[in-house]
Amino acid sequence: MQRLQVESRLASYQVVAEPGALGRLGEVLAAEGLAAPRSLVSDTVVAPLWAQAAAASCGASLLTIPAGEASKCWATVEDLLGRWLERGLHRGELVAAVGGGVVSDLVGFAAAVFLRGIAWVAAPTTLVGMVDAAIGGKTGINLERGKNLVGAFWPPRLVVIDPQALRTLPARELAAGGAEVVKTAWLGDRGLLPVIRDMAQPRFGALPVEVWQELVMRCATVKAGVVSADEREAGPRAALNLGHTLGHALEAATAYRRFLHGEAVAWGLLAAARLGRRRGLLSPAACEELSSAVRALGPLPGIADLAAEAVASHIGRDKKRDDGGVAWVLPSDGGVALGQRVTIDEALEVFTELQKAAS
Amino acid sequence: MQRLQVESRLASYQVVAEPGALGRLGEVLAAEGLAAPRSLVSDTVVAPLWAQAAAASCGASLLTIPAGEASKCWATVEDLLGRWLERGLHRGELVAAVGGGVVSDLVGFAAAVFLRGIAWVAAPTTLVGMVDAAIGGKTGINLERGKNLVGAFWPPRLVVIDPQALRTLPARELAAGGAEVVKTAWLGDRGLLPVIRDMAQPRFGALPVEVWQELVMRCATVKAGVVSADEREAGPRAALNLGHTLGHALEAATAYRRFLHGEAVAWGLLAAARLGRRRGLLSPAACEELSSAVRALGPLPGIADLAAEAVASHIGRDKKRDDGGVAWVLPSDGGVALGQRVTIDEALEVFTELQKAAS
Repeated sequence: MQRLQVESRLASYQVVAEPGALGRLGEVLAAEGLAAPRSLVSDTVVAPLWAQAAAASCGASLLTIPAGEASKCWATVEDLLGRWLERGLHRGELVAAVGGGVVSDLVGFAAAVFLRGIAWVAAPTTLVGMVDAAIGGKTGINLERGKNLVGAFWPPRLVVIDPQALRTLPARELAAGGAEVVKTAWLGDRGLLPVIRDMAQPRFGALPVEVWQELVMRCATVKAGVVSADEREAGPRAALNLGHTLGHALEAATAYRRFLHGEAVAWGLLAAARLGRRRGLLSPAACEELSSAVRALGPLPGIADLAAEAVASHIGRDKKRDDGGVAWVLPSDGGVALGQRVTIDEALEVFTELQKAAS
Repeated sequence: MQRLQVESRLASYQVVAEPGALGRLGEVLAAEGLAAPRSLVSDTVVAPLWAQAAAASCGASLLTIPAGEASKCWATVEDLLGRWLERGLHRGELVAAVGGGVVSDLVGFAAAVFLRGIAWVAAPTTLVGMVDAAIGGKTGINLERGKNLVGAFWPPRLVVIDPQALRTLPARELAAGGAEVVKTAWLGDRGLLPVIRDMAQPRFGALPVEVWQELVMRCATVKAGVVSADEREAGPRAALNLGHTLGHALEAATAYRRFLHGEAVAWGLLAAARLGRRRGLLSPAACEELSSAVRALGPLPGIADLAAEAVASHIGRDKKRDDGGVAWVLPSDGGVALGQRVTIDEALEVFTELQKAAS
């Protein structure tokens, strides 16, 4: 069992990784001193693949939500809370989330607000979930106006990573998760960038499970370091938003239908690299190092047909805006530069460049 | 300006009290080093009485929700969040709640989940709000299945009490708030009990504003002491639930239509006194001391027609239940006894006694 610790003001917690951990979830939780969860939540895709076995190993009842971003809304939270009340769940209990970012964000938020907060365990089954969504305590749901506009900082009691789950992840989702891997590597483990480029080229999905575990835990270590230092995103945690300002806007501008989150972040990383280059934060070589790692993940859904103005208006609604405009995170040779003001005009210019370069 | 400090793991905060504070809210906030709120939320009853002037003094836009418990639901939260997004509110800003417990619970919860948490200021205008709801960081909304089933611990940045607001509070609400005063006095300032009995008799509503301020701040001191020691209700904070187990059940069993919260708590205090007496926790004199203070507040909406089984089934759904049943807080001669298991049968018996005694 590989493990690392994440510090949190509410309660520090461990991330543990081991092939086969999902099928033995009950055992894994007991070994960590946790009670068996009474309710385990997953989605319609992950349930038959991994969550049914995980629930059986804990003696938990399995609740299944429809797979996809559309489930990440209040109606699903209210439905979950109702089922937990029906089952008589109380404050001393634990719930578990087995699935991707949608499941962990949603269940984490439901746990945060149910009876003013109950404990939960995250068992991410996607690459995005393992390297990003399940670590750091951010939970949330979407509003019609945008993604993650409602949420809470509510860290899980434990994160359980079973790298075998990546075997059943569609290649497209694996590549999308690769964008978060590239981002994380850029922030804190540059040695991973050539690994990603090499791995991605022949057969990204067919790596041995041990290699995946190594890759995932190295990313989780970077993320844990960042969020342990700054849980509530007062400062350095903002670095994790590298690639996310345009990423979120692309997702919103296409009604969350065209891009997987990681694919939108991949476009966001390419845009941020261009902006970093423009401002002299990034040398040509470093710009190429970052951009080529993103391109190695494979082709992305296109952006050529998107109206730049629509994308720009979504950028203007970014959660990280204040009275001075939207603060971007831009890559620099040494890491990232936080709080970079980018005017809407400049964002439009770079977006148009990207559209031309990609067409 | 009278003041006291409440300790909180997230951020300690002050409760300040002064006649006229609402009309000078902008000034009061500035003196406390806070920015002016961009959005001030109130309800349709309190807005013309106090909140319009408070908003004007801050240059805040005033959002008004329908008065009453029915507003304390997700639909209202979502509406508020949408309006905040429309106005471009961002993470660095402050919102203010001017009103009773419904307004502060609701706005506090909306602030807790908006963009994963923004700062808020509570300016309670009811007696319940001043002595209880606005202090301690509990925020929340109701589900159809019951009250406060969804929520967060999200303390305000400041609590501003203007005792003049009690002048416009209907006598029925003032008496209902008196039940929380009695509860609080029982927990930590018994010297208030004879004061309440004396005050209530001739003209509870016509007291000088200085007397109200003294009473309210003495209660707030007790509450602040309890929640500072145990913010998340791991232990001693549970004492504040004295009277609330039956209270919540009565509210739920009557669909929140018959009783004001404090009136239901008043019945709950009478039931808890009987249970405390039955178990020998409470001497006859102490039982009478507590019960007579409750009765001094005046007549309560009746319970004679309520089906005891319906009330009992709502008790069984109490948030403070665990596998061992519902844990009541019962009064003792020295204060309270926490975690008292009361079977549904015993609760039914005492409720039936109360029905007979009252009819």
